[in-house]
Amino acid sequence: MSEEPIIIRISKEDNVGVVANDTGLPKGTLLDDGTRLQDDVPSGYKVAMADIPAGGRIIRYGQTIGYSNRMINRGELVHEPAITLPDAPGLDAIPLSDNPEPELEPLDGYSFKGYRNGDGSAGTRNILGITISVQCVAGFTNSIVRRIKEELLPKYPNVNDVVALNHAYGCGVAIDVPSADIPIRTIKNIAANPNFGGQIIIAGLGCEKLVPERLLSEDHKNSRYDADMIILQDESFTGFNEMAGSIMRKAEVHLERLNRRKRVICPASDLVVGMQCGGSDAFSGITSNPVAGFAADLIVRAGGSLMFSEVTEVRDAVHLLVPRAINSSVGKALIDQMRWYDDYLSGWGADRSANPSPGNKRGGLSNVVEKALGSIAKSGTSPIVDVLAPGERIRRKGLTFAATPASDFICGTLQLAAGMNIHVFMTGLGTPYGLAMVPVIKVGSNSRMSRHWHDLIDLDAGQVALGQKTIEEMGWELFGMILEVASGEKTVACDRLGLYNDLVLFSPGPVT
Amino acid sequence: MSEEPIIIRISKEDNVGVVANDTGLPKGTLLDDGTRLQDDVPSGYKVAMADIPAGGRIIRYGQTIGYSNRMINRGELVHEPAITLPDAPGLDAIPLSDNPEPELEPLDGYSFKGYRNGDGSAGTRNILGITISVQCVAGFTNSIVRRIKEELLPKYPNVNDVVALNHAYGCGVAIDVPSADIPIRTIKNIAANPNFGGQIIIAGLGCEKLVPERLLSEDHKNSRYDADMIILQDESFTGFNEMAGSIMRKAEVHLERLNRRKRVICPASDLVVGMQCGGSDAFSGITSNPVAGFAADLIVRAGGSLMFSEVTEVRDAVHLLVPRAINSSVGKALIDQMRWYDDYLSGWGADRSANPSPGNKRGGLSNVVEKALGSIAKSGTSPIVDVLAPGERIRRKGLTFAATPASDFICGTLQLAAGMNIHVFMTGLGTPYGLAMVPVIKVGSNSRMSRHWHDLIDLDAGQVALGQKTIEEMGWELFGMILEVASGEKTVACDRLGLYNDLVLFSPGPVT
Repeated sequence: MSEEPIIIRISKEDNVGVVANDTGLPKGTLLDDGTRLQDDVPSGYKVAMADIPAGGRIIRYGQTIGYSNRMINRGELVHEPAITLPDAPGLDAIPLSDNPEPELEPLDGYSFKGYRNGDGSAGTRNILGITISVQCVAGFTNSIVRRIKEELLPKYPNVNDVVALNHAYGCGVAIDVPSADIPIRTIKNIAANPNFGGQIIIAGLGCEKLVPERLLSEDHKNSRYDADMIILQDESFTGFNEMAGSIMRKAEVHLERLNRRKRVICPASDLVVGMQCGGSDAFSGITSNPVAGFAADLIVRAGGSLMFSEVTEVRDAVHLLVPRAINSSVGKALIDQMRWYDDYLSGWGADRSANPSPGNKRGGLSNVVEKALGSIAKSGTSPIVDVLAPGERIRRKGLTFAATPASDFICGTLQLAAGMNIHVFMTGLGTPYGLAMVPVIKVGSNSRMSRHWHDLIDLDAGQVALGQKTIEEMGWELFGMILEVASGEKTVACDRLGLYNDLVLFSPGPVT
Repeated sequence: MSEEPIIIRISKEDNVGVVANDTGLPKGTLLDDGTRLQDDVPSGYKVAMADIPAGGRIIRYGQTIGYSNRMINRGELVHEPAITLPDAPGLDAIPLSDNPEPELEPLDGYSFKGYRNGDGSAGTRNILGITISVQCVAGFTNSIVRRIKEELLPKYPNVNDVVALNHAYGCGVAIDVPSADIPIRTIKNIAANPNFGGQIIIAGLGCEKLVPERLLSEDHKNSRYDADMIILQDESFTGFNEMAGSIMRKAEVHLERLNRRKRVICPASDLVVGMQCGGSDAFSGITSNPVAGFAADLIVRAGGSLMFSEVTEVRDAVHLLVPRAINSSVGKALIDQMRWYDDYLSGWGADRSANPSPGNKRGGLSNVVEKALGSIAKSGTSPIVDVLAPGERIRRKGLTFAATPASDFICGTLQLAAGMNIHVFMTGLGTPYGLAMVPVIKVGSNSRMSRHWHDLIDLDAGQVALGQKTIEEMGWELFGMILEVASGEKTVACDRLGLYNDLVLFSPGPVT
């Protein structure tokens, strides 16, 4: 007995539909509208719901995702080889407006249990962070973090973890090029993440180009963190054991302070949610990202901050985002970030077609336009109130576009710098991605992968495609999970398994 | 009682001398040649040994390191503010020649105990390496390496270690730009390092741009390593535990094979020594680098391979290196690598003056010319037989210039890819740098730091500056230490302390 065909069209203008059945549909299958499949169509792939002439528009999400490069008959599989990539939306032609969309209706009464910080932010974890001014000392911090965890951490039960904030920057770089601002502010702002409670230790070498004192700018010193610094080349140290002893003593002071902190009720408006997706498939834009988008609206309605990112994955939908900017200067900032990235890529002879990945394509995504239309669904429907350049810290409540590369680990690193205290990560193909600094909720776009990766995925949004739950129901479910995880009452998969990616800076400048 | 002044001039043409006394020399000190110090001169800093008119050449190592920008009186301190940086040697004007310098006299009878590999190379360690096709799986490999070390490694006493060869490449990059060759071949060639004995496990995700199969090119598959691959998105895995179980089983197979290996006598010609320096000071060019250069000649005379690197730190001395190329095509290759790097830097609006670091300057190095002249001393005196582009594997015995950035951790990563089985690292200011994959011998350029960092430095070449040992004596000492460490008979500081830097790829292309 063959399964009932499930075909998803988001807009009634769509002339392609996505096969949602777990195992795809065989050639010959008759669809509800009378279309008969001319090819085997794998799960997540597109089928022509009408004849599309050569040169005709291929329409998904009500938008042109490309042009047919041959006659495509109704019922045929429609994938990358048949589709010509359209030009990216021109950045100069997008109208700017000072007429914001109406704000969403406020949502009261939601809270979580977080750690209140001196600067008004709230942590969802209580972690001792040890940052570095240069990669040279990464071996030292790794070694010390192991030792602190063994010898000290058990004495401080209210502290969740000790984490080395290692990175590959700091020396052997042209530190005076304009783009060096990006990695430097990223390092500073990661240290100021609410989950470190303002208690940071900086380990430096002493001869590096990123002079460790630069991590102690007045802004950060006064308001964001109370940093202690150890410089290994300090003349007062005779040998490794003295260096280690010194940082162990500093760690004890900061652990003592962190240990005095207790979770308190914080309004949901203290949430800073970073959303991204990785390993997307054709379901991402139908299930997980719209579910995330619904939850995003709830976060915004509750007064919280929500970030979405990934410049190359919104670039082709920017004409749909700019009209959502709260005013023309935010709209312009959004366009400026796209332009900066266009120039950055073209400087290397690359362009947006470097995305999507082979896996995305295998998952049914034909090109970056289709990927972008699905990607922006996670931004929900609220006005875009601000735009951050890479590595900047979030400034406003509401929906912010934090410009980052789409690379999962770089995007996560930059959202961490922006101040996220909870991370929501959508995936269709599956990834073990996780961060030690902030809880990561992993949302699967399809039930097949979510079932397969049962202990690695926290929420199966694939239920939407199978008609088992609505986007609204699952959006509320995700919102509830965000509050529970932020409160430390629910453990996410990557924390249960101890799977943590390294931080990777966005460092668009030369090494020397 | 004040100390006897020690002033070092390498060439009799030098019109500046370097103060070698540990604590510097005070204003008023009378030097042997009748010069009286007009300033306090810290250790490692330069003093004018003659009047230098405004615009006059400042000469060290018999070479012009810059031009005086004011009248400098005999006895005055000479440092960066007084020196105008000369132009870099023009690359077009350097004559190419097919008349190689005479080869050095062969040195017979030296050997070490290494692990013989199927491809003819020899390891100095017997390590199970787990590489990755994309950073997404780095959390997975870290977790698995911990588990293998705990559960399996104790059963295989002849295996030294299990190491995750994590990196930040593999996805979220423009993988088709020409410069993408560099990180990709680096990842492949690291896996082929002799210390992994041809037993490599590749962990991939499945949707990444760097398709894991690309790490299994025929060349590598057949000759360099016998790789096993695990792809986390493989449909046969249900959940993390099955993925973990699968890689644990593969690890056991490879550990079993590695465990059967025993150290055997290998001729010194199987050594592949990678030399670099980091945290240099004004002593580096007088003590540690010439000592390394003497040892380099011994390695070459014994038929071994020796690499020196760091393009930006040899750039200003390239006119002295090209004449040492064994033929005009090697000379041209050297110039081509310089030109590539000039273009790379200028594309970002940077140039070689981005080097040296503040610490170098504090150590007495005034500019990149002075640094370069000291840096090339580690290449010894033998002909340059080959030039490698970044990430390429070594092809010849003798002295090779392996083009890399000067960044310590990137240079080390690229020398690892080139196939070094032992690393010699010179430092003046001190660094905890170390690698888990290959033993790193750390040579201090001055006794003050070497004494201070007694448990982090393996050899104090500062004894040369103090007249306690000659360069020749210490060169032989270093050569002997290389053989002992390669044989596993002597443990280096970073292995004793467990201080290991992360690998950092040279990836001169855009992220997406």
